[in-house]
Amino acid sequence: MAKDKKPRRPKAETPKGFRDYFGADVTERKQMLDAIADVYHRYGFDPLETSAVETLEALGKYLPDVDRPNAGVFAWQEEDGDWLALRYDMTAPLARVAAQFRNDLPTPYRRYTMGPVWRNEKPGPGRFRQFYQCDADTVGSGSVASDAEICAMLSDTLEAVGIPRGDYIVRVNNRKVLNGVMEVAGVLDPSDPDRFAHERGIVLRAIDKLDRLGEAGVRALLGAGRKDESGDFTDGANLSDAQAGVVMGFLAAKRDSGAETCARLEELVEGSAIGAEGVRELETIAALLAAQGYGPERIEIDPSVVRGLGYYTGPVFEAELTFEILDEKGRPRQFGSVAGGGRYDDLVKRFTGQAVPATGVSIGVDRLLAALRAKGRIGAAPQGPVVVTVMDRDRMADYQSMVGELRSAGIRAEVYLGNPKNFGNQLKYADKRNSPVAVIQGSDEAARGVVQIKDLFLGAKIAQSASHEEWKSQPAQFEVARADLVAEVRRIIDRAEG
Amino acid sequence: MAKDKKPRRPKAETPKGFRDYFGADVTERKQMLDAIADVYHRYGFDPLETSAVETLEALGKYLPDVDRPNAGVFAWQEEDGDWLALRYDMTAPLARVAAQFRNDLPTPYRRYTMGPVWRNEKPGPGRFRQFYQCDADTVGSGSVASDAEICAMLSDTLEAVGIPRGDYIVRVNNRKVLNGVMEVAGVLDPSDPDRFAHERGIVLRAIDKLDRLGEAGVRALLGAGRKDESGDFTDGANLSDAQAGVVMGFLAAKRDSGAETCARLEELVEGSAIGAEGVRELETIAALLAAQGYGPERIEIDPSVVRGLGYYTGPVFEAELTFEILDEKGRPRQFGSVAGGGRYDDLVKRFTGQAVPATGVSIGVDRLLAALRAKGRIGAAPQGPVVVTVMDRDRMADYQSMVGELRSAGIRAEVYLGNPKNFGNQLKYADKRNSPVAVIQGSDEAARGVVQIKDLFLGAKIAQSASHEEWKSQPAQFEVARADLVAEVRRIIDRAEG
Repeated sequence: MAKDKKPRRPKAETPKGFRDYFGADVTERKQMLDAIADVYHRYGFDPLETSAVETLEALGKYLPDVDRPNAGVFAWQEEDGDWLALRYDMTAPLARVAAQFRNDLPTPYRRYTMGPVWRNEKPGPGRFRQFYQCDADTVGSGSVASDAEICAMLSDTLEAVGIPRGDYIVRVNNRKVLNGVMEVAGVLDPSDPDRFAHERGIVLRAIDKLDRLGEAGVRALLGAGRKDESGDFTDGANLSDAQAGVVMGFLAAKRDSGAETCARLEELVEGSAIGAEGVRELETIAALLAAQGYGPERIEIDPSVVRGLGYYTGPVFEAELTFEILDEKGRPRQFGSVAGGGRYDDLVKRFTGQAVPATGVSIGVDRLLAALRAKGRIGAAPQGPVVVTVMDRDRMADYQSMVGELRSAGIRAEVYLGNPKNFGNQLKYADKRNSPVAVIQGSDEAARGVVQIKDLFLGAKIAQSASHEEWKSQPAQFEVARADLVAEVRRIIDRAEG
Repeated sequence: MAKDKKPRRPKAETPKGFRDYFGADVTERKQMLDAIADVYHRYGFDPLETSAVETLEALGKYLPDVDRPNAGVFAWQEEDGDWLALRYDMTAPLARVAAQFRNDLPTPYRRYTMGPVWRNEKPGPGRFRQFYQCDADTVGSGSVASDAEICAMLSDTLEAVGIPRGDYIVRVNNRKVLNGVMEVAGVLDPSDPDRFAHERGIVLRAIDKLDRLGEAGVRALLGAGRKDESGDFTDGANLSDAQAGVVMGFLAAKRDSGAETCARLEELVEGSAIGAEGVRELETIAALLAAQGYGPERIEIDPSVVRGLGYYTGPVFEAELTFEILDEKGRPRQFGSVAGGGRYDDLVKRFTGQAVPATGVSIGVDRLLAALRAKGRIGAAPQGPVVVTVMDRDRMADYQSMVGELRSAGIRAEVYLGNPKNFGNQLKYADKRNSPVAVIQGSDEAARGVVQIKDLFLGAKIAQSASHEEWKSQPAQFEVARADLVAEVRRIIDRAEG
């Protein structure tokens, strides 16, 4: 091999499934995280920030894809043999912290946390391998008052970030009621919990697909199975008609009020102790929420909520946005789920052997931002800095003094620091930055103690609406005394914002 | 193997070299990041957030340890063969972004970014493998006005986060001046830049250790070498006395003003074209900063600043905190460096083949927080939520209404959600949370339409200063009408804060 072979240049590419966030994408997310943290904090939750990296064994295998253990996680082996991994959610690290610091933390421990999580999944359109989650959990409280509180807080949070009442709904169900229904349907034997696990898996997944497949599709999956449009066949749970009827009845159990829905559920789980307990819990949650004024227009009991994760043991909840958006093909569809959670009483036990009750919620911040953008509630181009142009390279210190004064007055400002030779490029730069104002001072203006101020927003408006001749007269540019620079710029910015 | 062997429990441990941040550690850092972002934004910099993960080839090999390529980075191989890695700084991802989006970004592109970076290094006391950086860079400007601006912004930023003028100094040097000195000393041949590279490496590292080794130590390393206290011998650069004299003269070149230091440097690099260019750049920087009022009490030209990283090509700068703190052994020492940066004109070229001038600064946020904590400027225990205790489990809805009212009034509040049986535990919980107020309402109080308010801060004060008898009379607890709950709680909190 030739020794002087030139090294190949590295590719300037974001890794597959990752992306970069520029400007407003960053600040809008920050504003949302701040608004969410504000609500969580007011509810008494304390911040926690764990590192992005955990030992693989601490994370455990709680990803949806149970068939491929460790798949879905970015992991690597250390020189000393330990396996480390990037967290795939915020719940696994919380369980580790709750176990590790159990003697120091208050009980109950209420914490919130926000940050990226990583999934080693096949990337797709709009599906990224790093995304933000914003979680709040209460560890060490077995009371369903904690679950009710999380639901109320979720409702408050959605409104705080700009989703008006009526545009979202928080749906609440209970895994125990589901288990009761399974028992009544004959696919759960309390004396042998492992029996029928396969059938129950199919039933849970079928219920979870109600939105997409409709009642007939779910019914087919409860029975012999279902052939989809492409001709692929999905095996069913092979329930008898009577068994499937119990499950379908459960899915149709929703009534206008939480109390009525609970009454109907009570009939459906008759004879199942766990089912009855689940209904009582839902009743308590509904009563607590009603007493605080969270009616079914904000939070409702909905038996069709399942939540995919295997670790939930009691109440489960999900926030959905109910307005329609247009999908990639321009078809209207409901926006769907932006947050979910539930009670998981066994996660800390993995470490300590002792059951610790816990409940919490996770908000998918990036999806919520996408929703606000789809509704046009965020996403306007943010105002750029005032640009002080450079007419005379030797007077850089004068230009720096101008931006210094503007910044001291709280106005975002910068000197053009590219090559100043081509003045047109400086104005193009100011346009690209969405600057409200360009400041111009050549040696002639400097000698007379004045500056030129160019109102770029007004200029753009005139360019849009008026003829070329009018535009050329540039009424949006005017001269002011150097001493009035800050006041005049302030006046233009205030008008542009107002 | 027995099939029913119990699986080993995972250890609840933070991975070695990583740590968790609780409560105030999180909010104090957030406040600092917000304050820094505010200054960066005012200077016209736009936010950028790249993903934590980059391709290994995009990151390149710019870590200090050049002998072990890829060491220092957490990396793993994908199923498709690609190597991915966690970013080790914010500069390498910026260079990738600047190359990837060169046709869309404004020129110059000014961006700031903040977030964790990861180093796969041996952890030590106070040395973590994940820490925060907060960077600002200007890409596409070759003007030293950009370097001067970064230095001014760094000074403003330190003051904005709570380091008063006089407690820090920003030091500026220029790699070109260093190269000029090397040329004069005969260890740099402009016609054969690779020659003497080994010697120059030793000289640079020696200069970088001036603080620690003193003049005699550096002098030894420039010559035959140096034996340290433990008896270990470090090879020297084997410069002649005359050559070493040139370098030592350079280290002693600092004068009271930037102009005087530059004049002395000019003498030292006489005959070197690159050295003369470096001095001119320093003169321009000093003049620009002086014109804006940044005198040597904030920013000074200091020839001893080297900065370790190999990629700097022009001005380099470093912010040091000048006050003393006590080290682990109680000995006073200077706090040292909290930020650094410089001009690097070749990083984007790696990707595109075209040189792109760039300059920037990185603030070590965690070190800066440690400094403020050492000075007692942050770190007071934050106030916890008002805790509404549970006397009567059946009236949970009443207690929830109380916290609902408090929260609506902007007061942080929560219902005690642990097991309410032991009332003492509820008050212990409130203490642990650093709650200002506990609210108590038994059935008797409920019937009379009143609540008990316990002023926990006052209670703690009385407990500290008074006898047990006095404490038992509990003057810090009193009864108010239920309707006055919010107003009375507000009164106590305002007094505790005021």
